[in-house]
Amino acid sequence: MASQELTQLRDEINLILADFTDARSRSLTDIGSELQPVAHAMKEFITDSGKRFRPIFAYLGYLGTGASPRPEILRACTALELVHVCALIHDDVMDGSDTRRNKPAIHKLFESLHDNSSYQGNSERFGLASAILLGDLALVWADRLLVESGVTREEFINAQSVFSDMRDELMAGQYLDVLEGALATTSVERSLKVARFKSGKYSIERPLHFGASLAGQSDFYESYSKFGLPLGEAFQLRDDVLGVFGDPKTTGKPAGDDLREGKRTVLIAVTMENATPDERQIITSSLGKPDLSTESVAALQEIIVRSGALNEVEKLITELTHTAISALQDSPVNGKIVKVLEEMAIIATQRSV
Amino acid sequence: MASQELTQLRDEINLILADFTDARSRSLTDIGSELQPVAHAMKEFITDSGKRFRPIFAYLGYLGTGASPRPEILRACTALELVHVCALIHDDVMDGSDTRRNKPAIHKLFESLHDNSSYQGNSERFGLASAILLGDLALVWADRLLVESGVTREEFINAQSVFSDMRDELMAGQYLDVLEGALATTSVERSLKVARFKSGKYSIERPLHFGASLAGQSDFYESYSKFGLPLGEAFQLRDDVLGVFGDPKTTGKPAGDDLREGKRTVLIAVTMENATPDERQIITSSLGKPDLSTESVAALQEIIVRSGALNEVEKLITELTHTAISALQDSPVNGKIVKVLEEMAIIATQRSV
Repeated sequence: MASQELTQLRDEINLILADFTDARSRSLTDIGSELQPVAHAMKEFITDSGKRFRPIFAYLGYLGTGASPRPEILRACTALELVHVCALIHDDVMDGSDTRRNKPAIHKLFESLHDNSSYQGNSERFGLASAILLGDLALVWADRLLVESGVTREEFINAQSVFSDMRDELMAGQYLDVLEGALATTSVERSLKVARFKSGKYSIERPLHFGASLAGQSDFYESYSKFGLPLGEAFQLRDDVLGVFGDPKTTGKPAGDDLREGKRTVLIAVTMENATPDERQIITSSLGKPDLSTESVAALQEIIVRSGALNEVEKLITELTHTAISALQDSPVNGKIVKVLEEMAIIATQRSV
Repeated sequence: MASQELTQLRDEINLILADFTDARSRSLTDIGSELQPVAHAMKEFITDSGKRFRPIFAYLGYLGTGASPRPEILRACTALELVHVCALIHDDVMDGSDTRRNKPAIHKLFESLHDNSSYQGNSERFGLASAILLGDLALVWADRLLVESGVTREEFINAQSVFSDMRDELMAGQYLDVLEGALATTSVERSLKVARFKSGKYSIERPLHFGASLAGQSDFYESYSKFGLPLGEAFQLRDDVLGVFGDPKTTGKPAGDDLREGKRTVLIAVTMENATPDERQIITSSLGKPDLSTESVAALQEIIVRSGALNEVEKLITELTHTAISALQDSPVNGKIVKVLEEMAIIATQRSV
């Protein structure tokens, strides 16, 4: 499986998501035509771009055990994308982040619907309520896609334990993330712990386990953890760098969005360790201000670069990625899939989106 | 099974929930001691009172097919209570309802935690984020309780389709409810439709189907629908009456809470139909005001009574309950369980809590 095959895999996942959301949308509008905006927003959000890392890693986790490709398994793996959709929709509400993929976040979309339809009451509250429900719906749909994937009863049951653990860890990691913001953490160690739970386990390690569990091969969990945990951290660190330095055109989020939201990332923690007292003062007083100007964002970016934090985090990303890739060498993972996982490791950590 | 046995059933459900949340709480605090408040709040909310109607109806749905009592099945049925916990936690956020069972709602609880811990940032936003995550966690835990219930693979798979439909309908019904508030609906017909989806199907019909599906007896769905749909509507109408006239000591919500939240219930729709233009004006201008005084609540209550709406809704509750109970007479449902379902019908519609 080469790059081309990875692209093809992503296309297949997109097709599964399109078919599934079509059927779900119809079922929603059967309940009532008033649900048309919900059906439409769900379909748009789910099918509109997305890197599909979690289904891809899950399917590679399955194939890496030596199991043969099967479309039902890919469908089951695609359920993880819907869990992720729930996380994104709810995350944007929690962070007060109004843009996603260069479009209004779901809560903003329904706020506009309220405004444009001259509904009664508070439009912000309507947007909030809608986003909570659409996120819940995505979480429930994940279950349904897995149930209806066509995998055997045995495969379905085998996957349940990892599926439960993954979702528990996701919610726990999200809470830790919110809490670190409230604690205004500047500890590198603590920020790394959050990165590990919020994204490390959830984005890569657990999807790989999920795939192995569908194959009934829990023997592979350890190898996948040795690869997935460091890579997951590197993945989150890349996210953190993009949250500060990413190009809005490719990230789909405004420049410096993480700074406005006051995210306590490893990048910020390292900057705080390295910065001068004056610089530290500027960071503390600017971080988390929703109305931070473009100039202030630029000033913070400069401090982060000058402090050496960006370099350190880039170095850490490289090291973690190297550790991940090395771990595959002496593993029982199928040699052909090892090559693809290496490729995915580079894609996941060197991306600009 | 008599009243005493229903009480015993409720005790067993409470025990299952206590054991399950104990294990889940430990697992959360294993991830990090920072999750202690989450673990504690989940345990308190889940184990503290609750009528347990959905697990009870589900278990009766199972027994009604003639199947023999089994503790694993009761555990599986108890999963429905955790779906309900998600709905309650998220509902309170969406409605801006600050009290639940005479205690602070989850978002208020975490808002206080933020205030009392001198956390940084906006305490209201912290409360909101926490409540979204705790609701999500309850939804995920529902799945886990079902998976770990000990039912056979076949039973587990049989129950999946109803379980998915039920949760879809819940979210759709909640959206319709929020939308009706925004549309400031005064149509009795539309309010009844919301009552049907929001609670009618979700609270009684679907739990009964869920139980029958665990028994592998989809033949019983039709009988259970004939009983469950009208009863579910009556159940929701009772909720609506309690939301306006309920005693805070027993409902655990402030008097007239639904009026402050501007809920567009059947009770309000009938009042609007019957009221004089002056009274209609008072209702329109008062409904949905979060700071509505005790006097204004009393004035609205008086209009609702005087308009005859309370009487009409009470009559409707009685009729729907009668229709539900009659439907059981010529059904294939086990005779002993028919008696218990009749008893539950009275409990669900004549309650004060």
